[in-house]
Amino acid sequence: MLNVSGDTEFDVFDRNCPGRAVMEHVASRWGVLVLGALLDGTQRFGELRRTVGGVSEKMLAQTLQALERDGLVHREVRPVIPPHVDYSLTDLGVPMAEHIRALYRQIDRSMPEVLVAQGAYDERKAAG
Amino acid sequence: MLNVSGDTEFDVFDRNCPGRAVMEHVASRWGVLVLGALLDGTQRFGELRRTVGGVSEKMLAQTLQALERDGLVHREVRPVIPPHVDYSLTDLGVPMAEHIRALYRQIDRSMPEVLVAQGAYDERKAAG
Repeated sequence: MLNVSGDTEFDVFDRNCPGRAVMEHVASRWGVLVLGALLDGTQRFGELRRTVGGVSEKMLAQTLQALERDGLVHREVRPVIPPHVDYSLTDLGVPMAEHIRALYRQIDRSMPEVLVAQGAYDERKAAG
Repeated sequence: MLNVSGDTEFDVFDRNCPGRAVMEHVASRWGVLVLGALLDGTQRFGELRRTVGGVSEKMLAQTLQALERDGLVHREVRPVIPPHVDYSLTDLGVPMAEHIRALYRQIDRSMPEVLVAQGAYDERKAAG
């Protein structure tokens, strides 16, 4: 399958390409936050839930499961009492998470201009 | 507001931070595809809809509106007959889209390993 720019084998623009599904796991509301959070190190489920503000247990579990199946996140049940589950990035997940963190930084750098743009947009809409 | 890594003013992990909302526009199912597509140049609404496989008119319009409000996408109504609307990246949108395209490439590079991981995961689950 050809990418729109012709430089890749997989094509995220094709709804039937397996690369598109991975993009939807990685670049999702919770996927970007889980991957970015794990770049700082292993976290338990409950820790992750506190780090990723606003995520429900169900959505966090679904997000982690999809990323684990894609080979980006490693899940390890620790045989301690009480038992707990650690999540960490795999070798495949680390560069993905680094790209996500670069995106955080780009958003952070852009925010002053974004806020100005949002204000101007809202004024234009209010003026009809 | 402090980022989890302490290096930024905005915090995508905070559900109330304006940076989080921008992250949700950019790193959404359709946001990543619209930004990536526009890096190749201006497109009309109908062209974009064909490029971004599977997007509905409603979701494409919502995605474009959020990205326009954030100052990442420029919308221009062309006074021709029949009238049409061009969408392009702004100067603020280009570096964001470049990060997204880097993420496409990372996914593309990772796909052979992702497919192996998915197969192994499904076998483990099937084995119970």
